[in-house]
Amino acid sequence: MYEQEKQLVAEAALTYVKDGMIVGLGTGSTTERFIEALGPLVQAGLQIQGVATSLATVRLAERLHIPLIDLEEGMEIDVTIDGIDQIDGRFQTIKGGGGALFREKIVALMSRELLYLTDSSKFVHHLSGPLPVELDPFALPYVRQRLRDKHVSATLRVKDDRPFVTDGGHVILDVELSAISDVRVFAKEVKSWSGVLDTGYFERQPDHVLTVEEGKVKRIAHPRLRDGGGLV
Amino acid sequence: MYEQEKQLVAEAALTYVKDGMIVGLGTGSTTERFIEALGPLVQAGLQIQGVATSLATVRLAERLHIPLIDLEEGMEIDVTIDGIDQIDGRFQTIKGGGGALFREKIVALMSRELLYLTDSSKFVHHLSGPLPVELDPFALPYVRQRLRDKHVSATLRVKDDRPFVTDGGHVILDVELSAISDVRVFAKEVKSWSGVLDTGYFERQPDHVLTVEEGKVKRIAHPRLRDGGGLV
Repeated sequence: MYEQEKQLVAEAALTYVKDGMIVGLGTGSTTERFIEALGPLVQAGLQIQGVATSLATVRLAERLHIPLIDLEEGMEIDVTIDGIDQIDGRFQTIKGGGGALFREKIVALMSRELLYLTDSSKFVHHLSGPLPVELDPFALPYVRQRLRDKHVSATLRVKDDRPFVTDGGHVILDVELSAISDVRVFAKEVKSWSGVLDTGYFERQPDHVLTVEEGKVKRIAHPRLRDGGGLV
Repeated sequence: MYEQEKQLVAEAALTYVKDGMIVGLGTGSTTERFIEALGPLVQAGLQIQGVATSLATVRLAERLHIPLIDLEEGMEIDVTIDGIDQIDGRFQTIKGGGGALFREKIVALMSRELLYLTDSSKFVHHLSGPLPVELDPFALPYVRQRLRDKHVSATLRVKDDRPFVTDGGHVILDVELSAISDVRVFAKEVKSWSGVLDTGYFERQPDHVLTVEEGKVKRIAHPRLRDGGGLV
């Protein structure tokens, strides 16, 4: 997404944040813009409490003096604002390119409203992947073997020539989806394997998506919230 | 189990270990006896390679000069020898009292033969739990909420007045099973929740169990390996 488009979408997302809210703060470059735009409002008196989805977001929020709270049992997050990797016409989504997929999913699951910031390139006819899978490194040989048994390719995510390590100390396999007919069913099976914390297939779908079309921010509601359905 | 019984069972398990084997080494007090009995045989020339299920087992094996190897994709462990918390007449098992349940399960899943060392007190008519669940601490509020929604009680495992932390850096919830009619179905659902690495319900059932009856070691084969079925 162009820098200008990111900025437009990030600023439009501010209207979803109201005084007194608990706000889930996503991870990634577009969400960063949103958090950076939120900071001055908080400093000007907006009363919110943030829930961070990654250590990077914790650091950014702390720098901007946005108060953060820990997740608690029974907590309802009023709205979560996050980025996205892919979304299809049924609002099925894949996330996790940034490596924060598991924490992002927990926060999304505990949110009353979920808003994704995106651009038109993220809308796809068919989720093509890769599907990120976060797992304990001890389970890596087992999970790789299970994938191989299903003739599915996967790549261990690497950073600076070493396995990428998530905030929770886990690794990520980026799984190819070319041979997978139903991502939802496949992701459910992968999640059932020992040592898998979660996949980047998000069963909890966004209520709204903000995107940019012809230089203007456009809000697209989830199909179930629209008359007639269908994507725009 | 009495110390003498542990020793009897541990020594009987040695006959399952043959030259050239890859041997999964469990965790817990009975398995420790087995590993301690295995040490002198290795030092006397028995050629095996061990796969450890916990850091405690790594340390014990290293002290006894038992060579250890890491799990690898496609590796087949010839036999794994481990302890157990509960086993029912259909050889459904619950493990994890020692906190190594997830690594124990991965090693069990990659084993051709699985042998559990036990005493008669571990045989139960109905798996009564608690069921240990290993999860990422970030998921704790979410998983607790899911359990509460199902009216199921759970206790965060504590050690020295702090949450118990597994070798992988996770926490354990000990879940009460009194309100659960089918542990297998329940464990499958819990495993599907975000951040859960695994539960102590072991779908991979042992091929044999060694126990002590009237001062003698008794081997009980899995029902599928027995004519007529039924326990003993």
